[in-house]
Amino acid sequence: MKIKLANRLKGMNGGSMIDLLKATQIPGMISFAGGFPAPELFPAAEMAEVSQKVLKELPHLALQYSATEGYLPLRKHFADRMESKVNKKVSSDEILITAGSQQGLDFVAKALINPGDTIICESPTYLGAINAFRAYEPNFIEIPTDEHGMRLSVLEKILASEKNIKFIYINPDFQNPGGRSWSIDRRRKLVELIEKHDVPVVEDNPYGELYFEGKELPTIKSMDKNNHVIFLGTLSKILCPGYRLGWIYASKDFIKIFNTLKQAADLQCSTISQVEVSAYFDTYDIETHISSMKKVYSHRKNVMIKAMEKYFPEDVTYTNPKGGLFTWVTLPDGLNASCLQREKAIPKGVAFVPGEAFYPSGEIKNNFRLNFSCMSEEKIIEGIQLLGEAIKEYIKEK
Amino acid sequence: MKIKLANRLKGMNGGSMIDLLKATQIPGMISFAGGFPAPELFPAAEMAEVSQKVLKELPHLALQYSATEGYLPLRKHFADRMESKVNKKVSSDEILITAGSQQGLDFVAKALINPGDTIICESPTYLGAINAFRAYEPNFIEIPTDEHGMRLSVLEKILASEKNIKFIYINPDFQNPGGRSWSIDRRRKLVELIEKHDVPVVEDNPYGELYFEGKELPTIKSMDKNNHVIFLGTLSKILCPGYRLGWIYASKDFIKIFNTLKQAADLQCSTISQVEVSAYFDTYDIETHISSMKKVYSHRKNVMIKAMEKYFPEDVTYTNPKGGLFTWVTLPDGLNASCLQREKAIPKGVAFVPGEAFYPSGEIKNNFRLNFSCMSEEKIIEGIQLLGEAIKEYIKEK
Repeated sequence: MKIKLANRLKGMNGGSMIDLLKATQIPGMISFAGGFPAPELFPAAEMAEVSQKVLKELPHLALQYSATEGYLPLRKHFADRMESKVNKKVSSDEILITAGSQQGLDFVAKALINPGDTIICESPTYLGAINAFRAYEPNFIEIPTDEHGMRLSVLEKILASEKNIKFIYINPDFQNPGGRSWSIDRRRKLVELIEKHDVPVVEDNPYGELYFEGKELPTIKSMDKNNHVIFLGTLSKILCPGYRLGWIYASKDFIKIFNTLKQAADLQCSTISQVEVSAYFDTYDIETHISSMKKVYSHRKNVMIKAMEKYFPEDVTYTNPKGGLFTWVTLPDGLNASCLQREKAIPKGVAFVPGEAFYPSGEIKNNFRLNFSCMSEEKIIEGIQLLGEAIKEYIKEK
Repeated sequence: MKIKLANRLKGMNGGSMIDLLKATQIPGMISFAGGFPAPELFPAAEMAEVSQKVLKELPHLALQYSATEGYLPLRKHFADRMESKVNKKVSSDEILITAGSQQGLDFVAKALINPGDTIICESPTYLGAINAFRAYEPNFIEIPTDEHGMRLSVLEKILASEKNIKFIYINPDFQNPGGRSWSIDRRRKLVELIEKHDVPVVEDNPYGELYFEGKELPTIKSMDKNNHVIFLGTLSKILCPGYRLGWIYASKDFIKIFNTLKQAADLQCSTISQVEVSAYFDTYDIETHISSMKKVYSHRKNVMIKAMEKYFPEDVTYTNPKGGLFTWVTLPDGLNASCLQREKAIPKGVAFVPGEAFYPSGEIKNNFRLNFSCMSEEKIIEGIQLLGEAIKEYIKEK
């Protein structure tokens, strides 16, 4: 039969990304492409213990349907953890449990965007967000960024001139893909602007707790006075991705809307995943687990930076992030990272994500993203050396 | 702040349903409202065993991200089980793993419906499907049903006259809410009609394996020649709901589209849920588990029918389903099941789902749905007795 697709599918290009990620799974490939946490740090023994406890003590609860908004004890754990990040009381009614923060991205656009409405985002921005939002046919306005975050003078002009702006999407801590964080001044100034223009902000924060030095930056949500900020959290980077659990923290009015969407989209998240993770929070200290991850990631990041200093040509630049999972590499103007990947890197057995996918316009082509969290020191050095050779050959032939 | 919602939210009324379901959770309430399987039959010991095995042998895999389309060994298990239902080879490439069949409902509408396009459904139809579809602003055409299924003479006229019909949604086996199944003749005739008019059919089949007598009815998908049928399956009713796992079985072209939507919506289902359930399929025979459930549900259904014969007024009718989880009660014309629930049933401590929510038009108000799967014999009799009294009082006062 001939499939007649809805218009919303036209803008979505999940397929090419999925194909690319498949290429990175070729056996023997050194892949800096994914955003995978280090599997050897997963709390497998702890989860085996809580799983036994749950299936022995609460099988009728854990294997049954449960509430759309999420398992209450887990919502309370998430609310408790949010309190330290916003310095005020957080109620479990302000928390909805989602299938990772990706589902939060889908829900904010589904709730707010009519075709043609405007979403403002950083340039570059997280490709998974672009893909989720595209299903609702928005117009994207990309705001340039520098080492302190979004350039707010540009944002201010857009807010003053543009109609139908439905939200501003940002990833302020150790951004995916840029690796950069917003300064405290920019955070404060952003809140002033959104108050003035009455525009919601979607604060997507998977990496804020993974800082390598100093202390955690204050969330935008902690500066929010009138419920303009919708905060998206996830366990994927601080515990492990396998349970697919995240949360939205927002005003009760927003949560009620997202709850309606959750009911329609998939009824609820996996009950047993929620009950087991809640039991993990009851029994273990996740902060200890996060500390051990940060040490490993910080070391791997340093190894990668050192290797890039050694093996990359001088006119290739990269960020040196103070947390998170990614560094962002910039090739000299006019070069194309997708071609580099296809023609040189993959044949040498090394993969990354070309930067093009992180720009809604797709117009900037000389960046790529490298992940440093999920590989041994030796593999990082070997992979960066191969990549350095690939870049040199590619530049030489252009 | 003032929240400016997208237009698609206007038609969605998840809220009232969620509130109603909450009312049924009042302690001591005898609730026939949910569609819950019997928790005492869940394979808790078996799942505890496979969970230990998985977290010992495959922790790096089970706790990590995995493929958007689903964990391959589980897709193979689902493909193998589908083969016996369609009498042909099924490839794992024709299977996408979803968060229950509810997510399949969301995806078919998201893939195919532009605002104003038409969805054809049975009248009544599954309320969760109505709610999922409404997010994409369709026009619903309800086709009347009788004890053999949809009235195809009416469908035929609609197919010949109506434009922009994007799919026909049906629940042919032990329908939720009606409890009725389509005859084999109607199934064959439907396939002829969809071939002729080149319209896809969404076959939502959560209950087909839960037949109390005879054998399983042939799926519509088994009669499908040109990939018009999108089959939605779920583990919720045959294993347990807590893992939130279901699948879409459709042509590779459709699966590719749904995969793009899955990537945007939530990246993937819970890895650990998938790996554990796959290990369950490797180790245990789910058919034995299904057999034991069918015996219990069949008995409970008989108990409920007998109690209704005894306690309901004579002019109240109900279906006597040969499988599944529900019976469908019809009050005399002019009576309103929502009022009965609010004014008489809830105060007496018994709850059900008023039928109104199962009609997209919301115009028919004298039905309600009763679930017989999740309660003891004694509770069923007690609840039906209370409900009989509530109905008699309600009729008397009208």
